[in-house]
Amino acid sequence: MLRTLSVAAAVRCPLRLSRPCPLPGPLLLGLLSRQVREAAGSAGAECGSVLKTPKGTRDHHPAQMALRERLFGTVVACFKRHGAAAIDTPVLELRETLMEKYGDNSKLIYELQDQGGELLALRYDLTVPFARYLAMNKITNIKRYHIAKVYRRDNPAMTRGRYREFYQCDFDIAGQFDPMIPDAECLKIVHEILSELQIGDFLIKVNDRRILNGMFAICGIPESKLVTMCSTLDKLDKMPWEEVRNEMVGEKGLSPEAADRIGEYVQLHGGMDLIEQLLQDPKLSQNKLAKEGLGDMKLLFEYLTLFGITGKISFDLSLARGLDYYTGVIIEAVLLQQENDHGEESVSVGSVAGGGRYDGLVATFDPKGRKVPCVGISIGIERIFSILEQRMKASGEKVRTTETQVMVATPQKHLLSARLKLISELWDAGIKAEMMYRKDPKLLKQLQYCEDMGIPLVAIIGEQELRDGVVKLRDAATREEVDIPREELAAEIRRRLETCTTGNPAAPQPLPSC
Amino acid sequence: MLRTLSVAAAVRCPLRLSRPCPLPGPLLLGLLSRQVREAAGSAGAECGSVLKTPKGTRDHHPAQMALRERLFGTVVACFKRHGAAAIDTPVLELRETLMEKYGDNSKLIYELQDQGGELLALRYDLTVPFARYLAMNKITNIKRYHIAKVYRRDNPAMTRGRYREFYQCDFDIAGQFDPMIPDAECLKIVHEILSELQIGDFLIKVNDRRILNGMFAICGIPESKLVTMCSTLDKLDKMPWEEVRNEMVGEKGLSPEAADRIGEYVQLHGGMDLIEQLLQDPKLSQNKLAKEGLGDMKLLFEYLTLFGITGKISFDLSLARGLDYYTGVIIEAVLLQQENDHGEESVSVGSVAGGGRYDGLVATFDPKGRKVPCVGISIGIERIFSILEQRMKASGEKVRTTETQVMVATPQKHLLSARLKLISELWDAGIKAEMMYRKDPKLLKQLQYCEDMGIPLVAIIGEQELRDGVVKLRDAATREEVDIPREELAAEIRRRLETCTTGNPAAPQPLPSC
Repeated sequence: MLRTLSVAAAVRCPLRLSRPCPLPGPLLLGLLSRQVREAAGSAGAECGSVLKTPKGTRDHHPAQMALRERLFGTVVACFKRHGAAAIDTPVLELRETLMEKYGDNSKLIYELQDQGGELLALRYDLTVPFARYLAMNKITNIKRYHIAKVYRRDNPAMTRGRYREFYQCDFDIAGQFDPMIPDAECLKIVHEILSELQIGDFLIKVNDRRILNGMFAICGIPESKLVTMCSTLDKLDKMPWEEVRNEMVGEKGLSPEAADRIGEYVQLHGGMDLIEQLLQDPKLSQNKLAKEGLGDMKLLFEYLTLFGITGKISFDLSLARGLDYYTGVIIEAVLLQQENDHGEESVSVGSVAGGGRYDGLVATFDPKGRKVPCVGISIGIERIFSILEQRMKASGEKVRTTETQVMVATPQKHLLSARLKLISELWDAGIKAEMMYRKDPKLLKQLQYCEDMGIPLVAIIGEQELRDGVVKLRDAATREEVDIPREELAAEIRRRLETCTTGNPAAPQPLPSC
Repeated sequence: MLRTLSVAAAVRCPLRLSRPCPLPGPLLLGLLSRQVREAAGSAGAECGSVLKTPKGTRDHHPAQMALRERLFGTVVACFKRHGAAAIDTPVLELRETLMEKYGDNSKLIYELQDQGGELLALRYDLTVPFARYLAMNKITNIKRYHIAKVYRRDNPAMTRGRYREFYQCDFDIAGQFDPMIPDAECLKIVHEILSELQIGDFLIKVNDRRILNGMFAICGIPESKLVTMCSTLDKLDKMPWEEVRNEMVGEKGLSPEAADRIGEYVQLHGGMDLIEQLLQDPKLSQNKLAKEGLGDMKLLFEYLTLFGITGKISFDLSLARGLDYYTGVIIEAVLLQQENDHGEESVSVGSVAGGGRYDGLVATFDPKGRKVPCVGISIGIERIFSILEQRMKASGEKVRTTETQVMVATPQKHLLSARLKLISELWDAGIKAEMMYRKDPKLLKQLQYCEDMGIPLVAIIGEQELRDGVVKLRDAATREEVDIPREELAAEIRRRLETCTTGNPAAPQPLPSC
């Protein structure tokens, strides 16, 4: 049985827990305890009030940046593999550009002080600026990615690991195309990225706004209750249907009969079989919207079958997603975890990607209301980063924070000039090299620095080497030393480090063990 | 003769003209005319008021992003070659962190609306947040780079090409080391980057705050007038000494004698000879600060000689730089241009890098006032970007905005499934591949897309190829077609594109001609 504990995701930010989790899994607990410390803005211990970052923000240290660079590297490589171009938009937008795009969440937008001139705000996501960009530049056809920070004046509730400044990682396809081909590619991308990152088993849920709307209609739920019903429905992740039904009938004032009709549908999930079954459903197949959505869902699954990825895709009628602007397919990927104490049971430990089709958003910016159909996904990079960071800590793996290939060292005093001359030659030959900023450092200290920083090679130049026109090249791991003619040093360093390139193309640096 | 028209650079942002230039060089004029259009925030032509980016900000299109990626690639490669680690700090800082750090320029800081909670502002540069980071985390020793956006509510005066949101590209070395070794490395880095970018001839000016202060002291200029005198001095770039002298005596109320004494010094520039000469100067050598500064300048030039870069370094007594926080070496790099109508005359067309030593800034954040000496440089990435962009436009070079290696195409109808299956195989093999999002696109349209996007190869799969278990691989440039066994396709694509890798390591993409 598959039980999901927490799915998340306000407004295309699928990585953030939007509610407290009554039954957190062990991984989630681990993550949150860390995030509790960080969520309130990190601060030095004995410092005055000025010595902190703002609430909900944090600095990134070199080790975190190295990990982030690897993570972004994998994601960007995938986006580029699918032919995406990069764009960038300002962090600042006119306040009116963002207003009325996020419903209730608009209150979370950071506004700038009126210092004269335009009224400004910080972007809340990358999707609305993308739509503004398309309309403003009259672009009707683009495949782009955008990785950048967004800002939400969210309550950084301790238990939810929610940041106020965080990265989004978006891939979107804009343009009028044949149905479901770009939508299928978006799912393929999520599948590729989550597979490559090896962050554990995952499931990609799909649904369609049209199927949801049709389903609500045939169950006799008035359109005015659609939004509130979706938000209740969303809780099916972490409470049984009975409780969700109680809320629908009690709090939301739905008739018990309507609730039961909904209940029949939203507990369904599956693949092509379920789509075929619903296409035969006497009530649902009579609804125009639902029928259209189901037809496209069938097409989508045909394409996903050709991609060979249906094993991790679930057509899930309970998937609603919060956002008003979705008009077709909606997507959400969750990580699964075997619960230790329940044996076989898979538990969702949170959303790591989300997205969907939004065919109407660009038109809201176009003076003539011209539509540019769009579909896109957002990778929950912050959540994934937390998982990788925690795993790295647990494994004790030391991340290199620099890519230095060789340390230039001297074994005697009065050799600073020799060091400066040699390191300059290496830099000019494109070798990544460091030396200590001391006139006469002890050799032991220089070797110690090498070890601390994981620098694989040491180029030692002493009086004897200067006389002989050689440099002693030392392997930091084996401590083996060989004299190399000075003019061959750069080539030799390059040769040595090529032979120990690791198999991970995402790693931007030679590993310390090399 | 070397005449500088405009040097720039408020607060480590060496790329921005801080004053109107009475005598702009031809390149500068070209740049400005473009920037005039952009500086006020770009907007669509027929759009309502909402359809624009905020004043002083702009979107970056795919071609600009591709160029920016190459540029950042070159800069980051250099920073990494010198052993720097990356850090990141929030765009938001507490208002009190930034206040009183920028003198008069504090009025240019963007402040956020008080929406309850902390009072926040957008970072004005990367240096003050770096100092805050060091003090907060008690880091006394780090070599880091940081490339990120900063914000200045500057008047985006049309003629100055000034943006309100722009990138800074900083490299800094923090720690207590032997004199001038890290300082020399900073100059080496500027030299390497400006050489590699091939944006034209350049000159790196250096001076020392202590020499400036000593010089002012022995000329009888009271300390209270130091700041205002530095700002007048700064104008020596673009007006002759006589005019600068008039301003000093007239507006600033300096005695003619004091002005003449200053004049003797500030018109001097040179190398080791000048340093030796000033060390013998009866007045200057009696001043403790100046003597210390000159001694270190001599050491610096010794190291720069070992690096082989003194040819492009000028010890320039008129270099002042605006910032209060510098305490030792100050640096500014300018591009030079042969003036057409004056034959041999070299003209500075603007600052492209700047920096210096700031040994006291971290202590202003430390509760116990502990010092962490720092020296750093900032590459004027926006100015350089403008130059490269203009050059690219002039040359008509087409920038590829994607890295797609192969287009998967079908020559007949009803082959969407075949295309989807093949492209999926290629993606899974790590090949960058695209196809048209159409059920039955015409072959010509598919080839046209290839040409438009600069995709070097086409993998054509038709009925015959499907029967034969092959794929027709077409070279987009030569139009040559060869049947390749399907299972060898990915390897063949990789082999073909490896053989035409260009020599430019900064290029993140195979060039269209490949």
